Amino acid sequence: MQGKKPTLLKGTRDFAAPQVFRRNYIFDTIRHIYQKYGFLPLETPVLEHLTTLTGKYGEEGDQLLFKILNSGDFLEGVDSHTKDYKTLLPQIAAKGLRYDLTVPLMRYVAMNKDKLIFPFRRYQIQPVWRADRPQKGRYREFYQCDIDMVGASSLLCEAEILVMIHEVLLQLGIKDFTIHMNHRDVLKSLATLGGATNQEGALCVTLDKLDKVGKDKVLEELKGKGFSPAALERLLFIFDLPATQVDRWPILTKQLGLTQKGMQDMQKILDYVHALGLEEPSITLDPTLARGLSYYTGTIFEVKMKHTNWGSLGGGGRYDGLTDIFGLTGVSGVGFSFGLDRLYSVLEALDLFPSSMGSTTQVLLANLDPASEKWTLKALTTLRTNDIRAEIYPAVVKLKKQLQYAHKRQIPFVAIIGEEEHAAGVITLKDMRTGTQQQYSLEQMLQELS
Amino acid sequence: MQGKKPTLLKGTRDFAAPQVFRRNYIFDTIRHIYQKYGFLPLETPVLEHLTTLTGKYGEEGDQLLFKILNSGDFLEGVDSHTKDYKTLLPQIAAKGLRYDLTVPLMRYVAMNKDKLIFPFRRYQIQPVWRADRPQKGRYREFYQCDIDMVGASSLLCEAEILVMIHEVLLQLGIKDFTIHMNHRDVLKSLATLGGATNQEGALCVTLDKLDKVGKDKVLEELKGKGFSPAALERLLFIFDLPATQVDRWPILTKQLGLTQKGMQDMQKILDYVHALGLEEPSITLDPTLARGLSYYTGTIFEVKMKHTNWGSLGGGGRYDGLTDIFGLTGVSGVGFSFGLDRLYSVLEALDLFPSSMGSTTQVLLANLDPASEKWTLKALTTLRTNDIRAEIYPAVVKLKKQLQYAHKRQIPFVAIIGEEEHAAGVITLKDMRTGTQQQYSLEQMLQELS
Repeated sequence: MQGKKPTLLKGTRDFAAPQVFRRNYIFDTIRHIYQKYGFLPLETPVLEHLTTLTGKYGEEGDQLLFKILNSGDFLEGVDSHTKDYKTLLPQIAAKGLRYDLTVPLMRYVAMNKDKLIFPFRRYQIQPVWRADRPQKGRYREFYQCDIDMVGASSLLCEAEILVMIHEVLLQLGIKDFTIHMNHRDVLKSLATLGGATNQEGALCVTLDKLDKVGKDKVLEELKGKGFSPAALERLLFIFDLPATQVDRWPILTKQLGLTQKGMQDMQKILDYVHALGLEEPSITLDPTLARGLSYYTGTIFEVKMKHTNWGSLGGGGRYDGLTDIFGLTGVSGVGFSFGLDRLYSVLEALDLFPSSMGSTTQVLLANLDPASEKWTLKALTTLRTNDIRAEIYPAVVKLKKQLQYAHKRQIPFVAIIGEEEHAAGVITLKDMRTGTQQQYSLEQMLQELS
Repeated sequence: MQGKKPTLLKGTRDFAAPQVFRRNYIFDTIRHIYQKYGFLPLETPVLEHLTTLTGKYGEEGDQLLFKILNSGDFLEGVDSHTKDYKTLLPQIAAKGLRYDLTVPLMRYVAMNKDKLIFPFRRYQIQPVWRADRPQKGRYREFYQCDIDMVGASSLLCEAEILVMIHEVLLQLGIKDFTIHMNHRDVLKSLATLGGATNQEGALCVTLDKLDKVGKDKVLEELKGKGFSPAALERLLFIFDLPATQVDRWPILTKQLGLTQKGMQDMQKILDYVHALGLEEPSITLDPTLARGLSYYTGTIFEVKMKHTNWGSLGGGGRYDGLTDIFGLTGVSGVGFSFGLDRLYSVLEALDLFPSSMGSTTQVLLANLDPASEKWTLKALTTLRTNDIRAEIYPAVVKLKKQLQYAHKRQIPFVAIIGEEEHAAGVITLKDMRTGTQQQYSLEQMLQELS
């Protein structure tokens, strides 16, 4: 590869300063609100034992795990006749990259159950990896912003999370969103209604494709799975529900009954949401929502933009027994995760990023000649001591080139302290946006820049 | 593994909230100062092509790279008779985890050379991975805080970095440090002086062990490498230099001569450091410093604590031609990196972390009974609207249990709004640190907590 132009791995990205500032703006907004709701940070390692990760995300998930080759002679002790990669894999790879932040949390909770304080409120903002086929908007390395309440079965937890989602999105300026809410028990009832008792798994796998393939294909697939056409008729109402929560409620209660546990839970959650002061929540009961069925056991939510098909901004739900596999039983929890990239795309598309952001250099000090350099360096230190972001051009080159550098870097001011200025005890400050320049004392310049 | 207690991978760590807050305190301090010096953030992916990483860190480094097994059937197309892991490796693994932040920077600069603005001032605070043998204070996953100026050959860059290191450490409260400085040309001269012209590589590998094995073992090893005893006599002075810079200077100039490029460069840098206002810099010329010789071509620095053997807090130096391998020639740069973990250990050992830090919940609202819950939830929302970090205990359990929860979580206040309080329009606020409680209006409580 000597001298060859290098490339990025597909599905990964570099983030230059403007992107980092915009991403941090989202992270900071989310973090501040998560903390306001009483959640505390946790960070877990990128690398985990494959035994911790495997078997938690279904067969497809296992395939999408990035696996680390054992160090040193990884073939040592391996049966040399192994020709099947599936048999060889566990012999040569024992570590993997985390796939989400939920399984590491469960691993952490199980490991630290004796010293943790329950209900355990934690947030975690870290990247995850999936060996997915990269495509527009889908990356192999991406950030999730998770929040979970572990060891609490009260539906107040769900309500707090729903209110918090509102606060995060509104704070970011996103108004046109809907939180879709469903419940595992509603999906169970629908399976029964569709003549396929206890088949909600099959129902969900198909329903989950609704956004992509549409209603007709979903019905067709369900027929193929043995749902009888007559019974499917009874499910048709879920595809043609009115948009608003208020209009949906009577239809859903008529079809599913109010005594149904899922409906009761969701009613209670909505009551809590109102009690928390959110009078017109952007929440819709959506019986077609069927995500994460391998672990959600109660409520399920997903956030989408109303009129555009931008996919999911985040999702979550209640899980019981997720720590069972790590030897800690009887734990219920509820969580939610914002995806950073979708939020970023929406803010960008809707032009919602604040116009001035980040911490670019405020003033460039021109480097005129070796004599001037001395007092210019002194001014530089004074500026920094006063917490002004300042830099000096590191070499004596033509002033024009230095001004171009400031222009390209979008540095708003260039300070010039030549022989003349030094003798007069002033600084010439050039405003790069207007092109005007003015002379100041160091004191005045500090005020101007603060 | 069903039901088995999970573990962390050796050399990796979970960080609970108190650690996250302390780590962020260090990151924030460094980031703020880096930005004040005109540096902007860059983030690169964790995953890189192995071709980007391999061959940059010497043979030992290549072995310490974590390699990712190719996805899917990684044996497809592989010669089934391959029994040697070194031959098999490149056929089944094409990706790796970044080993440091310098090579990704060089890859980034080479890829974006046409749109970057030189001199390119970037900082990067991200984790790196090394498949090292874990031991006390050495991890497999750890953060580096890098700063680099790429495309600038002025020695003013070195001086700015040296001043900035002072500012970071002093800001963190660390006073008892020394920045050791050396120069590739000094090491060259020493090799010549030791009768082994152009053997500074061999000299450096041995010198680098000085802290660990001591002077006698170093001399013995050099003899083994063919340095003649008579010539080695002429090198003895480097082991017995006085502690302070002022006392060292005449000895070094006498032995190496002032016209030596390394000495001239370092003199110039020290002049710049003074011009930047640092009158008594904690910098020592140390001819035994010999780190990173595979890429440093000019100055070399390393920060250590004065009286304790805590190892390196960070290091850096000037490199020419690091981007050559990526097809971009003629670029000089200088960089420095703080290691987060060593800084953390020093701050902890010297008790330098601020006592109050982080964003723990300020007030817990007690959950007394379903009736009180309603108005308590309203108060909760008012608190959060006023940017107070507040939470409600999510279930109605005995008050004692809720107070215990607040105590364990170190939440300083518990607010109680029972029937009585509600009727009187007040809130009982219990100070968990003193045990006293007092009644306030909501307004008064907001003031109390702000």
